[in-house]
Amino acid sequence: MANDQILKNTNAKLLDEFNASVMFDKELYAQDIKGSIAHSQMLKEQGILTKKDQEDIENGLLQVKEEIESGKFEFKIEHEDIHMAVESRLTEIIGEAGKRLHTARSRNDQVATDFRLYVQDKNLSIKAQLKELVNTFVEVAKKHTETLIPGMTHLQHAQPINFGYHLLAYANMFKRDFERFESSHERNNYCPLGSAALAGTPHNINRFSTSEKLGFNSPTISALDTVSDRDFALEILFNISTAMMHISRISEELVTWSSYEFQFVRMSDEYATTSSIMPQKKNPDVPELLRGKTGRVYGNLVSLFTVMKGLPLAYNKDTQEDKEGVFDSVKTIEISISILNEVIKTMIINVERMANACKIGHLSATDLADYLVQKQAMPFRTAYYITKDVVTLANSLNKDISELTLEEIRSSNENIKDIDEEILMYLDLKASMNARTSFGGTSTKNTKEQIEIFEKWLKN
Amino acid sequence: MANDQILKNTNAKLLDEFNASVMFDKELYAQDIKGSIAHSQMLKEQGILTKKDQEDIENGLLQVKEEIESGKFEFKIEHEDIHMAVESRLTEIIGEAGKRLHTARSRNDQVATDFRLYVQDKNLSIKAQLKELVNTFVEVAKKHTETLIPGMTHLQHAQPINFGYHLLAYANMFKRDFERFESSHERNNYCPLGSAALAGTPHNINRFSTSEKLGFNSPTISALDTVSDRDFALEILFNISTAMMHISRISEELVTWSSYEFQFVRMSDEYATTSSIMPQKKNPDVPELLRGKTGRVYGNLVSLFTVMKGLPLAYNKDTQEDKEGVFDSVKTIEISISILNEVIKTMIINVERMANACKIGHLSATDLADYLVQKQAMPFRTAYYITKDVVTLANSLNKDISELTLEEIRSSNENIKDIDEEILMYLDLKASMNARTSFGGTSTKNTKEQIEIFEKWLKN
Amino acid sequence: MANDQILKNTNAKLLDEFNASVMFDKELYAQDIKGSIAHSQMLKEQGILTKKDQEDIENGLLQVKEEIESGKFEFKIEHEDIHMAVESRLTEIIGEAGKRLHTARSRNDQVATDFRLYVQDKNLSIKAQLKELVNTFVEVAKKHTETLIPGMTHLQHAQPINFGYHLLAYANMFKRDFERFESSHERNNYCPLGSAALAGTPHNINRFSTSEKLGFNSPTISALDTVSDRDFALEILFNISTAMMHISRISEELVTWSSYEFQFVRMSDEYATTSSIMPQKKNPDVPELLRGKTGRVYGNLVSLFTVMKGLPLAYNKDTQEDKEGVFDSVKTIEISISILNEVIKTMIINVERMANACKIGHLSATDLADYLVQKQAMPFRTAYYITKDVVTLANSLNKDISELTLEEIRSSNENIKDIDEEILMYLDLKASMNARTSFGGTSTKNTKEQIEIFEKWLKN
Amino acid sequence: MANDQILKNTNAKLLDEFNASVMFDKELYAQDIKGSIAHSQMLKEQGILTKKDQEDIENGLLQVKEEIESGKFEFKIEHEDIHMAVESRLTEIIGEAGKRLHTARSRNDQVATDFRLYVQDKNLSIKAQLKELVNTFVEVAKKHTETLIPGMTHLQHAQPINFGYHLLAYANMFKRDFERFESSHERNNYCPLGSAALAGTPHNINRFSTSEKLGFNSPTISALDTVSDRDFALEILFNISTAMMHISRISEELVTWSSYEFQFVRMSDEYATTSSIMPQKKNPDVPELLRGKTGRVYGNLVSLFTVMKGLPLAYNKDTQEDKEGVFDSVKTIEISISILNEVIKTMIINVERMANACKIGHLSATDLADYLVQKQAMPFRTAYYITKDVVTLANSLNKDISELTLEEIRSSNENIKDIDEEILMYLDLKASMNARTSFGGTSTKNTKEQIEIFEKWLKN
Repeated sequence: MANDQILKNTNAKLLDEFNASVMFDKELYAQDIKGSIAHSQMLKEQGILTKKDQEDIENGLLQVKEEIESGKFEFKIEHEDIHMAVESRLTEIIGEAGKRLHTARSRNDQVATDFRLYVQDKNLSIKAQLKELVNTFVEVAKKHTETLIPGMTHLQHAQPINFGYHLLAYANMFKRDFERFESSHERNNYCPLGSAALAGTPHNINRFSTSEKLGFNSPTISALDTVSDRDFALEILFNISTAMMHISRISEELVTWSSYEFQFVRMSDEYATTSSIMPQKKNPDVPELLRGKTGRVYGNLVSLFTVMKGLPLAYNKDTQEDKEGVFDSVKTIEISISILNEVIKTMIINVERMANACKIGHLSATDLADYLVQKQAMPFRTAYYITKDVVTLANSLNKDISELTLEEIRSSNENIKDIDEEILMYLDLKASMNARTSFGGTSTKNTKEQIEIFEKWLKN
Repeated sequence: MANDQILKNTNAKLLDEFNASVMFDKELYAQDIKGSIAHSQMLKEQGILTKKDQEDIENGLLQVKEEIESGKFEFKIEHEDIHMAVESRLTEIIGEAGKRLHTARSRNDQVATDFRLYVQDKNLSIKAQLKELVNTFVEVAKKHTETLIPGMTHLQHAQPINFGYHLLAYANMFKRDFERFESSHERNNYCPLGSAALAGTPHNINRFSTSEKLGFNSPTISALDTVSDRDFALEILFNISTAMMHISRISEELVTWSSYEFQFVRMSDEYATTSSIMPQKKNPDVPELLRGKTGRVYGNLVSLFTVMKGLPLAYNKDTQEDKEGVFDSVKTIEISISILNEVIKTMIINVERMANACKIGHLSATDLADYLVQKQAMPFRTAYYITKDVVTLANSLNKDISELTLEEIRSSNENIKDIDEEILMYLDLKASMNARTSFGGTSTKNTKEQIEIFEKWLKN
Repeated sequence: MANDQILKNTNAKLLDEFNASVMFDKELYAQDIKGSIAHSQMLKEQGILTKKDQEDIENGLLQVKEEIESGKFEFKIEHEDIHMAVESRLTEIIGEAGKRLHTARSRNDQVATDFRLYVQDKNLSIKAQLKELVNTFVEVAKKHTETLIPGMTHLQHAQPINFGYHLLAYANMFKRDFERFESSHERNNYCPLGSAALAGTPHNINRFSTSEKLGFNSPTISALDTVSDRDFALEILFNISTAMMHISRISEELVTWSSYEFQFVRMSDEYATTSSIMPQKKNPDVPELLRGKTGRVYGNLVSLFTVMKGLPLAYNKDTQEDKEGVFDSVKTIEISISILNEVIKTMIINVERMANACKIGHLSATDLADYLVQKQAMPFRTAYYITKDVVTLANSLNKDISELTLEEIRSSNENIKDIDEEILMYLDLKASMNARTSFGGTSTKNTKEQIEIFEKWLKN
Repeated sequence: MANDQILKNTNAKLLDEFNASVMFDKELYAQDIKGSIAHSQMLKEQGILTKKDQEDIENGLLQVKEEIESGKFEFKIEHEDIHMAVESRLTEIIGEAGKRLHTARSRNDQVATDFRLYVQDKNLSIKAQLKELVNTFVEVAKKHTETLIPGMTHLQHAQPINFGYHLLAYANMFKRDFERFESSHERNNYCPLGSAALAGTPHNINRFSTSEKLGFNSPTISALDTVSDRDFALEILFNISTAMMHISRISEELVTWSSYEFQFVRMSDEYATTSSIMPQKKNPDVPELLRGKTGRVYGNLVSLFTVMKGLPLAYNKDTQEDKEGVFDSVKTIEISISILNEVIKTMIINVERMANACKIGHLSATDLADYLVQKQAMPFRTAYYITKDVVTLANSLNKDISELTLEEIRSSNENIKDIDEEILMYLDLKASMNARTSFGGTSTKNTKEQIEIFEKWLKN
């Protein structure tokens, strides 16, 4: 019998641990207290709480907040969730009045409010971080609008571009990410508070008032929908996944560029590590870890989608599983942007290696073809075959086509045996880069225009 | 040696099959031809193509389109992709001029344009379908603003709500879906054409002209970014996943409601099937299949995220894997919305069963608690315990609390032994529903207001 | 300049936090110490370490272990990972000899060993838990081999089965899960230790000795493969996902069965919660949360698959992201099995409700059809139409077909107007259940046989 | 009214399309017919079918099979699924007897049988393909047991290994994949046939007989579990995902190695493509596409896990979504293994580039450290710092440490100012590779031993 009791207690403890969310949803303490203060103020405005009670509640809540932030507050499993943790401490401090805070409110709308406030806060702060990151890319790009690097497709040298232009491609990605966080913030800026359990409340509350106090556009328009709506959480998980995917792409490039074979960049000493057993190695751990962290944010998106699948209306306990993944993805993207920002600022760029690399692969081959089409009015397919012959010759001479003499070029194919020396200009690598002047193209001129577009955007 | 040749041929065939995308990207034929026509017109405007050549090209392309749409056109693996398929047929029809279409264009920007045009078309058409679906929910809701149904949390009866109100929760979800497709359309309405392989082109093209002809806001601002940007595709996959998640939720409810135990609704005969071996059964196959189809659209989102992870700039062949999943998700959501729309329109609603169900579970218990708090100024926790006693009594009498007499209520707890008969009003189920008048609440009045909000929105 | 320094320090701290794994991989302390002891013993055997050094190391490691387990040990970000944390403390305790432990070992094979030991331990312990869970299902099933419940397809009553039989379906699922953990344990029981950084070591080590000491079958056969092989981790994530999927299915049933409409089971008081605002409700929170936890384990699987995609040989820092998801999935399945086990043991089964439910839906319709085919030698399709007529008649009389009189049956269709009264036996619900005597069928006899199969299996 | 009718017909058509599975499950025709023949033979054995009927059925089914394989058979949406398609054609051919095939069988067990037979067939054929792939890796490895290549971690040169050894790492991965398919085949080799709808059948069937005829170990032991068990399908999706992950890793390496910077390998002409606009480029499209195809197989796994989550017993229509993803993943892995096999066989290996690469990065640094520890009995950390000094000196002389003279070495650090010339041997690259003789190490001797292990395995 004593054994039975022990077993029962063990089970009870396990169950408490299983059910309770307070150990992770304490993350929402600031939002919970903010929401509760707004609620109490509204209740007072509506004559539901007395002035005195409201003041006690507000002061009490501020004290709880202070206790949490100073580390004095001890979270316990018995509190179940952050709402209970705050409310029970409030009642300890101010007595019975603390319980009146619960009027016209349910845990369902309270948690929906806390969580949405958190996500909205993060939509804004991540947006701000992304803007800073775009700024960093633009700043570094500005210094390299004439730095040649081989533009690649299939990891093969394709055309000479400038390194600033390369970096701006990422500025574009992170700008789109910025726009997604912004758009999600707008689309979800509606206040759940006052939805109560699932159907609203008979109390004479004013949802527009709490909505305004909490910085929302207006209250949500269906309580039933609201208590289980987690679209806003899915959106931030998706937006983070897309941003991390972009981060994984620049990270992959940084890792490749850091190899002995490429040596286009080197991580600054803080952002690389040496091996315990191989002292001469400098490992690009940081970009590798950034790339690896894509996994967890993808996983968190899948998790919440799985949780939400097939849930009937309205609130179900499954939804308690909505927060940890969001917290984890948010922390991951926050630190990842910060770190990437520093990596880009501090990386050591090997301009000479990049320039030399452009001499491998006949990067001005397309220019030659284009020249033949445009200036010599040949059909593209003909130009294509001539270009192939020029490349073949260069290969046999162990040269890049940009290094061929006029005689050599002329000798390569019957159709160009008398070609004008103008052709040499089209084979020059920098000229090749600067020839691409179509909007969005790589020429230094266009790259500078692109930078201006970004600078204008960054100022707003 | 002959065997070797056979093996080589087999491998070559397998390889063609592996590499070629034409068997699925033929889906993009209309976008490909539309893009090519715009490109040819721009080339003519810029003096790169003659008027004659452009006319031949445009007429030729329209003929190819006609051949495809009438089923005359035979797609072959040798064509590799839709662009080659169209271009090679064009050249058969109009000769050498067909090849000039390729000027100042690469497969990289061509496929990016085709695919983005497709996704943008679908953003609009799915948006339109969602609006129709919202309309259906609103129309059915209008007829049921006084139809009682138990509002549930945890699949347990919680509070009486009206069925119209329940349906409007879904109208809210699908409206948010609408907004996401709309927002994605706006954010991605930039034209890739003219990005060429990865760096723009030296030809004197006018990207603003093609952009306008194709209905985009303006050209994209970095060619390098553009040729491998698939954010627009990820967005539509996410938006579809979220919409399907919502569909899975109403489907789950329809399945549950169709059970013998619930019998809240019945699928109309077309949307249910009978069992091959159990003639009396009516299976809600359609909502089950809708629910099941959530799987494939989630999977397609994961697929593309996986493909894009860690891809260096610019184009890589991996990206060829971007389309099939999008096509599949688009078809899935299109048919799913159409089917759901009909299911909702035609379902047979069992008003009586729903009303009777409200009498199980003491649904006005919260009203009783609220009444004690609001009108009798008791602290919530006290009211909570009184309510518990009333419920206990009702259970012992095998009644719902809405069926108790005043005497019975008074006898349940010392604190309410003299309570006014006003209390009876608060236990009535319809009154309980109508008492929830907070904004977004379930009262018939609020439900009608919500319907008005939707009708206004639907009109725009 | 002072500001610069502060910024630099902030960045450095952030970076340490980003890079370090010690805050989560400390979970592996026991495996790390176990592996190090085995390594030191082998080094001694091979004459690489002196007896004295080895003893100091072993005693030192045991002291570190004791410090960790008693909570005296303080983990710090500066330790980077668990290996450094243990080694640096060891060196504090025993001095220089501590560093010799690092001979012929690298962090790459050390972490691979620690992590694999952890996963192998968990394969065994989860397997044991699953066996206990199967046992619980069998024990409850034994009591209900004659308890009628409607067997459902499409959540529609289909055929009468017994509740024990229903529960045994889950016993089968969890037995398969058991087999998967077992099979993964066997397939991955190879020791990474001695792989060193990626290529083995010139030291004269004996990998077979450490392998044996650590309970593995033998050492892995390629060091290069081993240091980045995470198949064993993917397998446990998959096995957990499949098991959680099964748990989500029984959970869904428990939630549905707990509804007012079904009332087939009730969660015991510990495994249900009451609502804060609706005192009469008993919410099946526990099965809902079990169902919801499927999300996180699916997500963890996706995460690791994403991390591993496209990683070149051999070790890359991305792989540091392999552990947290595994720890989380392991903890989730461990607590979920424990909780489900108690839920099943303690649930209150409403035998009467289940039996009554069988009278809805003409569950013996298939038996009627089968009877007509088997005993009356009618083609199935004919029997099918007769059955339909009988059902139609029963519906018109507001009866279940099991309640029809012989006269009524005979009157329903011309083809059976003289049918023998034997037919009544085929319409009886219990008889119907007991008629299904094919191997694996639902008859009480077969159910008991199935139980015997399980009991035999459980004994081994 | 006419319009209404048209609309209704349109909807009906849409619905048929939505519900029907025949357009994809026709893939299972051979398994369906095989299963039906076995079922008919068993029915005859049990006296349920006459000899004549059974013969008609078997011959009829073989005719249907022939019609399908010769392309004569036209699949129509009206058939709904493959079972109906086959059965209705059978009845056309042999008349009424065709319908008797349905005795003691339901679509639920029929589809479970067909699908499992398909998956089991594929488990075997993919296993066989994997063995061939392992063989190819081993064959190529055999030729390169002395070919130096830099072993990398973090894409940084780490230690000299041989290329054969590198390839064998993949042989190990694909061998594990082989084992997983094998294990899944064994674990799931149980026959669903005879489970009927969900509860078995009252007909006197013999499930052991059909099980044996179809090559299964024995019948499944719970009909209720069996009709919705899709663990076997999840397993093959997981096994394929893991194998594709391995393929993505070698593909990543092939892409990197094909770059101008690395030039370790070149794809043979068939397995690379040239760019439409850049004639000199050779793009490693094939490995890129292999890498990209990882996305779809991961997605298919997520899809089915999503479908299965929370499904109540027994069969639900959601499960119809189980097949397409499996078909797609199977086709993907089949073609991917075939293609990879040829890629590996035909790739052109640049032995000289690999060897030269080993001279970058001081790859024998670890050997130096090991030498100091082993032969000079220094503590590892001391050896580590000496090594660092030697590397620093080499860098200042623009040499690899393998190229330093004894004098130079002695001058680098006070502790080794009198070191013996034996040290030079430890800095030699080939010697360094061959020094790693621990089991699973990279020395040529060990590599050859590894090859022997594989050859023995391949012979079985």
